[in-house]
Amino acid sequence: MSDLIDISVLIGPSLPIWPGTSGWTLTNTSGDDGVMESTLLCDCHIGTHVDAPAHALPGGATSESLPLDLLIGDAMVAHVPDAHAITPNALESLNVPPGTRRLLLRTRNSLLWGKAFQTDYAALTPDAAQWVVERGIRLLGVDYLSVQRYDERGFKTHRILLSGGVTVVEGLDLSQVEAGVYELLCLPLKLTDAGGVPARAVLRRYSSSDRDTRQR
Amino acid sequence: MSDLIDISVLIGPSLPIWPGTSGWTLTNTSGDDGVMESTLLCDCHIGTHVDAPAHALPGGATSESLPLDLLIGDAMVAHVPDAHAITPNALESLNVPPGTRRLLLRTRNSLLWGKAFQTDYAALTPDAAQWVVERGIRLLGVDYLSVQRYDERGFKTHRILLSGGVTVVEGLDLSQVEAGVYELLCLPLKLTDAGGVPARAVLRRYSSSDRDTRQR
Repeated sequence: MSDLIDISVLIGPSLPIWPGTSGWTLTNTSGDDGVMESTLLCDCHIGTHVDAPAHALPGGATSESLPLDLLIGDAMVAHVPDAHAITPNALESLNVPPGTRRLLLRTRNSLLWGKAFQTDYAALTPDAAQWVVERGIRLLGVDYLSVQRYDERGFKTHRILLSGGVTVVEGLDLSQVEAGVYELLCLPLKLTDAGGVPARAVLRRYSSSDRDTRQR
Repeated sequence: MSDLIDISVLIGPSLPIWPGTSGWTLTNTSGDDGVMESTLLCDCHIGTHVDAPAHALPGGATSESLPLDLLIGDAMVAHVPDAHAITPNALESLNVPPGTRRLLLRTRNSLLWGKAFQTDYAALTPDAAQWVVERGIRLLGVDYLSVQRYDERGFKTHRILLSGGVTVVEGLDLSQVEAGVYELLCLPLKLTDAGGVPARAVLRRYSSSDRDTRQR
Protein backbone atom coordinates (compact mmCIF):
# COMPACT_ATOMS: atom_id res chain seq x y z
CA MET A 1 0.00 0.00 0.00
CA SER A 2 1.36 3.39 -0.92
CA ASP A 3 1.83 5.80 1.95
CA LEU A 4 0.43 8.60 -0.24
CA ILE A 5 -3.23 9.56 -0.60
CA ASP A 6 -4.00 11.97 -3.42
CA ILE A 7 -6.64 14.35 -2.06
CA SER A 8 -6.79 16.53 -5.18
CA VAL A 9 -9.74 16.47 -7.53
CA LEU A 10 -9.14 15.88 -11.21
CA ILE A 11 -9.46 18.85 -13.51
CA GLY A 12 -11.48 16.89 -16.03
CA PRO A 13 -14.95 16.58 -17.53
CA SER A 14 -16.68 15.62 -14.27
CA LEU A 15 -15.31 18.50 -12.20
CA PRO A 16 -18.15 20.61 -10.77
CA ILE A 17 -17.87 24.22 -11.87
CA TRP A 18 -18.96 27.18 -9.75
CA PRO A 19 -21.95 28.85 -11.44
CA GLY A 20 -21.04 31.86 -13.54
CA THR A 21 -17.31 31.12 -13.71
CA SER A 22 -15.25 30.15 -16.71
CA GLY A 23 -14.28 26.71 -15.43
CA TRP A 24 -11.46 25.27 -17.50
CA THR A 25 -10.60 24.58 -21.12
CA LEU A 26 -7.70 22.46 -22.31
CA THR A 27 -6.49 22.83 -25.89
CA ASN A 28 -4.13 20.23 -27.33
CA THR A 29 -2.33 20.63 -30.64
CA SER A 30 -0.04 18.16 -32.37
CA GLY A 31 2.47 19.14 -35.01
CA ASP A 32 3.79 17.13 -37.94
CA ASP A 33 6.65 16.11 -35.67
CA GLY A 34 4.25 14.26 -33.34
CA VAL A 35 4.86 16.74 -30.53
CA MET A 36 1.77 17.51 -28.48
CA GLU A 37 1.44 20.95 -26.89
CA SER A 38 -1.25 21.80 -24.36
CA THR A 39 -2.71 25.12 -23.28
CA LEU A 40 -4.92 25.52 -20.22
CA LEU A 41 -7.42 28.27 -19.51
CA CYS A 42 -8.75 28.08 -15.98
CA ASP A 43 -10.44 29.93 -13.21
CA CYS A 44 -7.83 30.05 -10.44
CA HIS A 45 -10.46 28.90 -7.91
CA ILE A 46 -11.16 25.70 -9.78
CA GLY A 47 -10.95 22.25 -8.21
CA THR A 48 -8.29 21.91 -5.52
CA HIS A 49 -6.91 25.39 -4.86
CA VAL A 50 -5.62 27.78 -2.24
CA ASP A 51 -7.17 31.18 -1.60
CA ALA A 52 -4.85 34.15 -1.23
CA PRO A 53 -5.84 36.97 1.15
CA ALA A 54 -6.40 39.23 -1.88
CA HIS A 55 -9.35 37.04 -2.87
CA ALA A 56 -11.41 38.58 -0.07
CA LEU A 57 -9.32 41.47 1.27
CA PRO A 58 -8.70 44.41 -1.11
CA GLY A 59 -4.95 45.07 -1.09
CA GLY A 60 -4.25 41.74 0.60
CA ALA A 61 -1.35 39.45 -0.22
CA THR A 62 -1.54 37.64 -3.54
CA SER A 63 -0.80 34.09 -4.59
CA GLU A 64 3.01 34.21 -4.72
CA SER A 65 3.19 34.80 -0.97
CA LEU A 66 1.27 31.71 0.13
CA PRO A 67 3.35 30.18 2.95
CA LEU A 68 4.95 26.85 1.99
CA ASP A 69 5.84 26.11 5.61
CA LEU A 70 2.14 26.07 6.43
CA LEU A 71 1.14 24.16 3.31
CA ILE A 72 3.53 21.35 4.23
CA GLY A 73 3.35 19.65 7.62
CA ASP A 74 1.23 17.77 10.13
CA ALA A 75 -2.52 18.05 9.52
CA MET A 76 -5.45 16.65 11.41
CA VAL A 77 -8.27 15.17 9.34
CA ALA A 78 -11.59 15.23 11.21
CA HIS A 79 -14.95 13.85 10.18
CA VAL A 80 -17.63 16.49 10.66
CA PRO A 81 -21.17 15.55 11.73
CA ASP A 82 -23.57 15.73 8.81
CA ALA A 83 -25.09 19.19 8.49
CA HIS A 84 -25.34 21.96 5.92
CA ALA A 85 -23.91 24.53 8.35
CA ILE A 86 -20.66 23.78 10.15
CA THR A 87 -21.07 25.66 13.43
CA PRO A 88 -18.74 26.30 16.38
CA ASN A 89 -20.54 23.49 18.19
CA ALA A 90 -19.81 21.08 15.35
CA LEU A 91 -16.14 22.07 15.41
CA GLU A 92 -16.02 21.81 19.20
CA SER A 93 -17.33 18.24 18.94
CA LEU A 94 -14.26 17.24 16.90
CA ASN A 95 -11.99 17.40 19.97
CA VAL A 96 -9.20 19.08 18.05
CA PRO A 97 -6.06 18.82 20.22
CA PRO A 98 -4.59 22.11 21.46
CA GLY A 99 -1.72 23.24 19.24
CA THR A 100 -3.23 21.84 16.04
CA ARG A 101 -2.09 24.16 13.23
CA ARG A 102 -3.66 22.45 10.25
CA LEU A 103 -7.20 21.08 10.16
CA LEU A 104 -8.89 19.34 7.24
CA LEU A 105 -12.65 18.84 7.48
CA ARG A 106 -14.14 15.78 5.88
CA THR A 107 -17.88 16.14 5.34
CA ARG A 108 -20.52 14.57 3.15
CA ASN A 109 -19.18 16.93 0.45
CA SER A 110 -16.47 14.44 -0.42
CA LEU A 111 -19.23 12.28 -1.92
CA LEU A 112 -20.29 15.11 -4.24
CA TRP A 113 -17.19 15.00 -6.45
CA GLY A 114 -18.02 13.71 -9.90
CA LYS A 115 -21.50 15.18 -9.78
CA ALA A 116 -22.69 18.51 -11.17
CA PHE A 117 -22.25 21.52 -8.89
CA GLN A 118 -24.44 21.35 -5.77
CA THR A 119 -25.50 24.42 -3.81
CA ASP A 120 -26.24 22.60 -0.54
CA TYR A 121 -22.67 21.59 0.28
CA ALA A 122 -21.59 21.78 3.90
CA ALA A 123 -19.51 24.82 4.88
CA LEU A 124 -18.62 27.07 7.79
CA THR A 125 -20.75 29.74 9.36
CA PRO A 126 -18.99 33.06 10.12
CA ASP A 127 -18.85 32.24 13.82
CA ALA A 128 -17.26 28.90 13.01
CA ALA A 129 -14.61 30.82 11.06
CA GLN A 130 -14.06 32.93 14.16
CA TRP A 131 -13.67 29.74 16.21
CA VAL A 132 -10.95 28.55 13.80
CA VAL A 133 -9.04 31.83 14.12
CA GLU A 134 -9.33 31.90 17.90
CA ARG A 135 -8.16 28.30 18.26
CA GLY A 136 -4.90 29.22 16.52
CA ILE A 137 -5.52 27.01 13.50
CA ARG A 138 -3.39 28.38 10.68
CA LEU A 139 -4.51 26.22 7.77
CA LEU A 140 -8.05 25.06 7.10
CA GLY A 141 -8.94 22.61 4.36
CA VAL A 142 -12.46 21.86 3.14
CA ASP A 143 -13.84 19.26 0.77
CA TYR A 144 -15.87 21.39 -1.61
CA LEU A 145 -15.32 24.49 -3.66
CA SER A 146 -15.87 27.07 -0.94
CA VAL A 147 -15.29 27.37 2.79
CA GLN A 148 -18.51 29.36 3.15
CA ARG A 149 -22.08 28.37 2.41
CA TYR A 150 -23.51 29.08 -1.02
CA ASP A 151 -26.35 31.14 0.37
CA GLU A 152 -24.22 33.27 2.70
CA ARG A 153 -24.69 36.97 2.01
CA GLY A 154 -21.46 38.91 1.71
CA PHE A 155 -18.12 37.24 2.05
CA LYS A 156 -17.81 37.27 5.82
CA THR A 157 -16.59 33.72 6.43
CA HIS A 158 -13.76 34.15 3.93
CA ARG A 159 -12.82 37.55 5.36
CA ILE A 160 -12.70 36.33 8.94
CA LEU A 161 -10.40 33.46 8.01
CA LEU A 162 -8.13 35.36 5.64
CA SER A 163 -7.83 38.45 7.81
CA GLY A 164 -7.17 36.12 10.75
CA GLY A 165 -4.09 34.70 9.05
CA VAL A 166 -5.64 31.36 8.13
CA THR A 167 -4.55 29.77 4.86
CA VAL A 168 -7.65 28.33 3.19
CA VAL A 169 -7.44 25.24 1.00
CA GLU A 170 -10.60 24.42 -0.90
CA GLY A 171 -11.67 21.58 -3.16
CA LEU A 172 -10.12 18.61 -1.38
CA ASP A 173 -11.36 15.07 -1.91
CA LEU A 174 -11.22 13.47 1.52
CA SER A 175 -13.53 10.57 0.69
CA GLN A 176 -10.72 8.02 1.12
CA VAL A 177 -9.24 9.49 4.29
CA GLU A 178 -9.80 8.15 7.78
CA ALA A 179 -9.70 10.59 10.68
CA GLY A 180 -6.23 11.10 12.11
CA VAL A 181 -2.97 12.96 11.69
CA TYR A 182 -1.11 12.90 8.38
CA GLU A 183 1.60 14.87 6.69
CA LEU A 184 -0.02 17.36 4.33
CA LEU A 185 1.84 18.23 1.14
CA CYS A 186 -0.10 21.01 -0.59
CA LEU A 187 1.73 22.82 -3.37
CA PRO A 188 0.03 25.66 -5.24
CA LEU A 189 1.48 26.87 -8.53
CA LYS A 190 4.01 29.65 -8.05
CA LEU A 191 1.94 32.32 -9.74
CA THR A 192 2.25 36.06 -9.22
CA ASP A 193 -0.54 38.48 -8.37
CA ALA A 194 -3.54 36.16 -8.30
CA GLY A 195 -6.34 35.95 -5.74
CA GLY A 196 -6.01 32.20 -5.59
CA VAL A 197 -4.19 29.45 -7.34
CA PRO A 198 -4.73 25.81 -8.31
CA ALA A 199 -2.78 23.31 -6.22
CA ARG A 200 -2.01 19.63 -5.87
CA ALA A 201 -2.53 18.22 -2.43
CA VAL A 202 -1.43 14.87 -1.06
CA LEU A 203 -1.53 13.29 2.38
CA ARG A 204 1.19 10.96 3.57
CA ARG A 205 0.61 8.37 6.24
CA TYR A 206 3.21 8.34 8.97
CA SER A 207 4.97 5.14 9.86
CA SER A 208 5.31 4.59 13.59
CA SER A 209 9.05 5.28 13.45
CA ASP A 210 8.44 8.55 11.57
CA ARG A 211 5.97 9.64 14.19
CA ASP A 212 8.51 9.16 16.91
CA THR A 213 11.41 10.91 15.26
CA ARG A 214 10.22 13.52 12.78
CA GLN A 215 10.56 17.19 13.43
CA ARG A 216 7.13 18.73 13.43
CA MET B 1 16.63 28.44 8.56
CA SER B 2 13.71 26.71 6.91
CA ASP B 3 14.31 23.16 5.82
CA LEU B 4 12.45 23.90 2.56
CA ILE B 5 13.99 25.25 -0.64
CA ASP B 6 11.51 26.40 -3.27
CA ILE B 7 12.99 25.31 -6.62
CA SER B 8 10.03 26.52 -8.70
CA VAL B 9 10.27 29.57 -10.93
CA LEU B 10 7.69 32.31 -10.54
CA ILE B 11 5.04 32.58 -13.22
CA GLY B 12 5.43 36.33 -13.45
CA PRO B 13 6.65 39.11 -15.74
CA SER B 14 10.28 37.96 -15.78
CA LEU B 15 9.60 34.34 -16.71
CA PRO B 16 11.33 33.44 -19.98
CA ILE B 17 8.85 32.24 -22.59
CA TRP B 18 9.64 29.62 -25.21
CA PRO B 19 9.57 31.29 -28.64
CA GLY B 20 6.30 30.87 -30.50
CA THR B 21 4.28 29.74 -27.49
CA SER B 22 1.45 31.54 -25.76
CA GLY B 23 3.22 31.96 -22.42
CA TRP B 24 0.78 33.00 -19.76
CA THR B 25 -1.87 35.64 -19.12
CA LEU B 26 -3.49 36.36 -15.77
CA THR B 27 -6.77 38.26 -15.66
CA ASN B 28 -8.02 39.64 -12.36
CA THR B 29 -11.48 41.05 -11.85
CA SER B 30 -12.96 42.62 -8.74
CA GLY B 31 -16.66 42.94 -8.09
CA ASP B 32 -18.56 45.56 -6.09
CA ASP B 33 -18.28 43.19 -3.14
CA GLY B 34 -14.47 43.50 -3.12
CA VAL B 35 -14.03 39.87 -4.16
CA MET B 36 -11.14 39.32 -6.55
CA GLU B 37 -11.37 36.53 -9.10
CA SER B 38 -8.44 35.39 -11.22
CA THR B 39 -8.28 33.50 -14.49
CA LEU B 40 -5.09 32.01 -15.89
CA LEU B 41 -4.31 31.15 -19.49
CA CYS B 42 -1.06 29.24 -19.82
CA ASP B 43 1.01 27.00 -21.97
CA CYS B 44 1.25 23.76 -19.95
CA HIS B 45 5.02 23.66 -20.56
CA ILE B 46 5.57 27.01 -18.92
CA GLY B 47 8.02 27.57 -16.05
CA THR B 48 8.35 24.60 -13.69
CA HIS B 49 6.45 21.71 -15.23
CA VAL B 50 6.38 17.97 -15.80
CA ASP B 51 6.26 16.40 -19.25
CA ALA B 52 3.82 13.57 -19.82
CA PRO B 53 4.79 10.80 -22.25
CA ALA B 54 2.10 12.07 -24.66
CA HIS B 55 4.16 15.23 -25.16
CA ALA B 56 6.60 13.28 -27.32
CA LEU B 57 5.00 9.86 -27.88
CA PRO B 58 1.74 9.81 -29.88
CA GLY B 59 -0.81 7.82 -27.87
CA GLY B 60 1.36 8.01 -24.75
CA ALA B 61 0.08 8.53 -21.23
CA THR B 62 -1.23 11.99 -20.45
CA SER B 63 -0.84 14.29 -17.49
CA GLU B 64 -3.26 12.65 -15.04
CA SER B 65 -1.10 9.52 -14.88
CA LEU B 66 2.14 11.18 -13.77
CA PRO B 67 3.44 9.02 -10.90
CA LEU B 68 3.29 10.74 -7.52
CA ASP B 69 5.49 8.09 -5.93
CA LEU B 70 8.29 9.14 -8.27
CA LEU B 71 7.63 12.85 -7.92
CA ILE B 72 8.04 12.61 -4.16
CA GLY B 73 11.16 11.10 -2.63
CA ASP B 74 14.93 11.17 -2.34
CA ALA B 75 16.64 13.10 -5.11
CA MET B 76 20.29 13.74 -5.82
CA VAL B 77 21.23 17.26 -6.89
CA ALA B 78 24.46 17.31 -8.92
CA HIS B 79 26.39 20.26 -10.31
CA VAL B 80 27.17 19.69 -13.97
CA PRO B 81 30.44 20.93 -15.51
CA ASP B 82 29.83 24.04 -17.61
CA ALA B 83 29.03 23.13 -21.21
CA HIS B 84 26.24 23.67 -23.73
CA ALA B 85 25.91 19.93 -24.36
CA ILE B 86 25.48 17.58 -21.41
CA THR B 87 27.10 14.37 -22.64
CA PRO B 88 27.38 10.88 -21.19
CA ASN B 89 30.91 11.79 -20.10
CA ALA B 90 29.63 14.82 -18.21
CA LEU B 91 27.02 12.65 -16.46
CA GLU B 92 29.63 9.97 -15.72
CA SER B 93 31.78 12.60 -14.02
CA LEU B 94 29.01 13.27 -11.49
CA ASN B 95 29.63 9.95 -9.71
CA VAL B 96 25.93 9.26 -9.30
CA PRO B 97 25.61 6.44 -6.75
CA PRO B 98 24.12 3.17 -8.02
CA GLY B 99 20.43 2.94 -7.18
CA THR B 100 19.80 6.67 -7.57
CA ARG B 101 16.21 7.00 -8.85
CA ARG B 102 15.90 10.78 -9.03
CA LEU B 103 18.56 13.10 -10.40
CA LEU B 104 18.38 16.89 -10.63
CA LEU B 105 21.02 18.61 -12.74
CA ARG B 106 22.18 22.04 -11.70
CA THR B 107 23.91 23.88 -14.54
CA ARG B 108 24.72 27.47 -15.43
CA ASN B 109 21.08 27.61 -16.60
CA SER B 110 19.96 28.38 -13.06
CA LEU B 111 21.56 31.80 -13.52
CA LEU B 112 19.39 32.48 -16.59
CA TRP B 113 16.10 32.80 -14.72
CA GLY B 114 14.85 36.35 -14.74
CA LYS B 115 16.37 37.03 -18.15
CA ALA B 116 14.70 36.83 -21.54
CA PHE B 117 14.66 33.40 -23.17
CA GLN B 118 18.13 32.15 -24.12
CA THR B 119 18.75 29.58 -26.85
CA ASP B 120 22.17 28.45 -25.61
CA TYR B 121 21.02 26.84 -22.37
CA ALA B 122 22.71 23.61 -21.35
CA ALA B 123 20.80 20.39 -22.05
CA LEU B 124 21.24 16.69 -22.74
CA THR B 125 22.40 15.06 -25.92
CA PRO B 126 20.40 12.03 -27.08
CA ASP B 127 23.16 9.68 -25.93
CA ALA B 128 23.13 11.33 -22.52
CA ALA B 129 19.39 10.60 -22.40
CA GLN B 130 20.20 6.98 -23.20
CA TRP B 131 22.73 6.99 -20.34
CA VAL B 132 20.00 8.19 -17.95
CA VAL B 133 17.65 5.39 -19.02
CA GLU B 134 20.33 2.71 -18.80
CA ARG B 135 21.43 3.83 -15.34
CA GLY B 136 17.91 3.20 -14.04
CA ILE B 137 17.21 6.83 -13.22
CA ARG B 138 13.45 7.24 -13.15
CA LEU B 139 13.10 10.99 -12.68
CA LEU B 140 15.30 13.64 -14.26
CA GLY B 141 15.06 17.32 -13.41
CA VAL B 142 16.69 20.13 -15.37
CA ASP B 143 17.06 23.83 -14.68
CA TYR B 144 15.77 25.34 -17.90
CA LEU B 145 12.69 25.00 -20.06
CA SER B 146 13.72 21.89 -21.99
CA VAL B 147 15.74 18.75 -21.35
CA GLN B 148 17.07 18.86 -24.92
CA ARG B 149 19.13 21.48 -26.68
CA TYR B 150 17.39 24.23 -28.57
CA ASP B 151 19.13 23.37 -31.82
CA GLU B 152 18.49 19.63 -31.67
CA ARG B 153 16.69 18.42 -34.77
CA GLY B 154 13.70 16.20 -34.09
CA PHE B 155 12.65 15.36 -30.56
CA LYS B 156 14.96 12.44 -29.91
CA THR B 157 16.20 13.34 -26.42
CA HIS B 158 12.64 13.69 -25.15
CA ARG B 159 11.56 10.47 -26.83
CA ILE B 160 14.43 8.42 -25.41
CA LEU B 161 13.65 9.61 -21.88
CA LEU B 162 9.87 9.35 -22.06
CA SER B 163 9.81 6.00 -23.85
CA GLY B 164 12.39 4.80 -21.33
CA GLY B 165 10.03 5.42 -18.45
CA VAL B 166 11.79 8.53 -17.14
CA THR B 167 9.63 11.28 -15.67
CA VAL B 168 11.00 14.60 -16.89
CA VAL B 169 10.75 17.74 -14.76
CA GLU B 170 11.75 20.94 -16.51
CA GLY B 171 12.12 24.54 -15.43
CA LEU B 172 13.68 24.11 -11.98
CA ASP B 173 15.61 26.89 -10.29
CA LEU B 174 18.53 25.16 -8.60
CA SER B 175 20.62 28.30 -8.11
CA GLN B 176 20.32 28.08 -4.32
CA VAL B 177 20.92 24.35 -4.02
CA GLU B 178 24.17 22.73 -2.98
CA ALA B 179 25.01 19.29 -4.33
CA GLY B 180 23.64 16.49 -2.19
CA VAL B 181 20.60 14.37 -1.42
CA TYR B 182 17.29 16.03 -0.56
CA GLU B 183 13.67 15.05 -0.40
CA LEU B 184 11.97 16.18 -3.60
CA LEU B 185 8.33 17.24 -3.39
CA CYS B 186 7.13 17.90 -6.93
CA LEU B 187 3.38 18.18 -7.37
CA PRO B 188 1.91 18.80 -10.83
CA LEU B 189 -1.68 19.96 -11.14
CA LYS B 190 -4.10 17.05 -11.43
CA LEU B 191 -5.16 17.79 -14.98
CA THR B 192 -6.63 15.32 -17.44
CA ASP B 193 -5.44 14.64 -20.99
CA ALA B 194 -2.57 17.13 -21.30
CA GLY B 195 0.91 16.58 -22.70
CA GLY B 196 2.44 18.28 -19.71
CA VAL B 197 1.39 20.21 -16.69
CA PRO B 198 2.65 23.07 -14.51
CA ALA B 199 3.97 21.99 -11.13
CA ARG B 200 5.34 23.32 -7.86
CA ALA B 201 8.60 21.76 -6.76
CA VAL B 202 10.30 22.03 -3.39
CA LEU B 203 13.35 20.38 -1.86
CA ARG B 204 13.52 19.55 1.81
CA ARG B 205 16.78 19.19 3.65
CA TYR B 206 17.07 16.08 5.74
CA SER B 207 18.00 16.34 9.36
CA SER B 208 20.55 13.75 10.45
CA SER B 209 17.91 11.86 12.46
CA ASP B 210 15.57 11.79 9.43
CA ARG B 211 18.32 10.41 7.27
CA ASP B 212 18.88 7.54 9.65
CA THR B 213 15.27 6.54 10.09
CA ARG B 214 13.15 7.53 7.11
CA GLN B 215 11.76 5.00 4.71
CA ARG B 216 13.17 5.74 1.28
